Amino acid sequence: MLVNGKQDNLISIRDRGLLYGDGVFRTILARQGKAQHWLLHYQKLQQDCSALNIPCQDFALLSTELDRLLTQHPDGVVKLIVTRGQGTRGYAPPVQATPNHIWSVSPCPDYPVDRATLGIKARMCQLLLSHQPRLAGIKHLNRLENVLAAAEWNNSESHDADIAEGLLMDEQRHVIEGTRSNLFLVSQGKLITPDLSRCGVAGVQRDRVMAWAAQHNMPLQVRDVGLDEVMHADELFLVNSIINIWPIRELEQRCWSDFPITEKIRHELNGQNK
Amino acid sequence: MLVNGKQDNLISIRDRGLLYGDGVFRTILARQGKAQHWLLHYQKLQQDCSALNIPCQDFALLSTELDRLLTQHPDGVVKLIVTRGQGTRGYAPPVQATPNHIWSVSPCPDYPVDRATLGIKARMCQLLLSHQPRLAGIKHLNRLENVLAAAEWNNSESHDADIAEGLLMDEQRHVIEGTRSNLFLVSQGKLITPDLSRCGVAGVQRDRVMAWAAQHNMPLQVRDVGLDEVMHADELFLVNSIINIWPIRELEQRCWSDFPITEKIRHELNGQNK
Repeated sequence: MLVNGKQDNLISIRDRGLLYGDGVFRTILARQGKAQHWLLHYQKLQQDCSALNIPCQDFALLSTELDRLLTQHPDGVVKLIVTRGQGTRGYAPPVQATPNHIWSVSPCPDYPVDRATLGIKARMCQLLLSHQPRLAGIKHLNRLENVLAAAEWNNSESHDADIAEGLLMDEQRHVIEGTRSNLFLVSQGKLITPDLSRCGVAGVQRDRVMAWAAQHNMPLQVRDVGLDEVMHADELFLVNSIINIWPIRELEQRCWSDFPITEKIRHELNGQNK
Repeated sequence: MLVNGKQDNLISIRDRGLLYGDGVFRTILARQGKAQHWLLHYQKLQQDCSALNIPCQDFALLSTELDRLLTQHPDGVVKLIVTRGQGTRGYAPPVQATPNHIWSVSPCPDYPVDRATLGIKARMCQLLLSHQPRLAGIKHLNRLENVLAAAEWNNSESHDADIAEGLLMDEQRHVIEGTRSNLFLVSQGKLITPDLSRCGVAGVQRDRVMAWAAQHNMPLQVRDVGLDEVMHADELFLVNSIINIWPIRELEQRCWSDFPITEKIRHELNGQNK
């Protein structure tokens, strides 16, 4: 763990990240001492900081720190948090912010390997995402909606170990994303992914799939998607930087068993990870 | 500063309060060694914890710690944060949470004293609050909307020292609250305060005004309020635990100069603070 470049695992209780969730973060997979798609993650970090008007640390500094971290922990889930730092009391951000940045590494989750090939069981969450265009797309630290959604099938009363992810709709019943992943539909040979301009988090892996589609002339639409369309898709898959790509084999009584296009994209994106 | 009862000003970077804003807080005014309306604040804390399924520390423990704090700092703004504590990686809350609780004290803000009598200048914020019934009313740690709203008139480009508060509307253009206060309208001898079932924070001071109205047979409505109604109110006032009650004397070109009912409520609530 590194806090502002120093070995540490503590932060001030006056940090605005704690007080208000006033910050952003990235979750990055490290394999054999290499942080996958670090440049893309840095670019997103920069965008997200800019959207909240938080000064972002520069690439060279963060890259140096990341290298130090990876020397000690070559494999794991690397998390980078940037907060607006401390300020005077009150919501108004300080005019001259001194951001804090925090690195931590956790062991790679031991997901069953066949999730990538056989697919996962997913559920629809009851919680509906709220619309906040000013925060949509940003991976910020206000994540209570995700916490409440994940609690729906992970708490003691309703634990279902077979369910690997929950899908979230907004108040207009558009399907937006998974609690920790982005969603793609394959329908009649084209890709569709929900519009994230009012809610949701736009992940790096989603960008990679979109870039792949553009390079391979595969039609891709970014737009509102209803539940009915999701249930009738030819294939569904979820992406994030840790799981990479998981097809959905079961969602609320509907089952899928073939994922040819998901499989193709997975192989090609995996190739880029090497 | 106290963290889990120990003199400290640091918290783990694995605390879910920092990671996800997974916690709640209270802001309490301390005067001459007494925390005003501590019991009401504790009851709200308990309600808010319960809404997020965070175990709340018991009253006796927190009261003892608060007393210790007040011995050292008899006057100030006392903040109490309760987070869900640490857990394994991921949004899902741990089945057995071990919450952290954090006390801090800041100096009382030196607001001009005439704000309570002459009223303040307020503005309408551009940011629109999102609807999340699952989180509405709760004073949780996901406060980026408040941060963005407060930044509208407090940053370097648009600083207006004369503006003391900004009012927030939701996406349906209902007026909901101030960035750090609750709003009341006085209209034809009755009180009106916005419904907070879809967004907003229901503060202790709002409850106190509502209780006062009930005790004094003053008609009070809790319902949706449009901007037009706000602009045509006989009086407007803002409440929170630190400012107590401030009338609004100016809001977007409309001015008010007499606040007889606000004045009456202010005196009576102040009397209870003694």
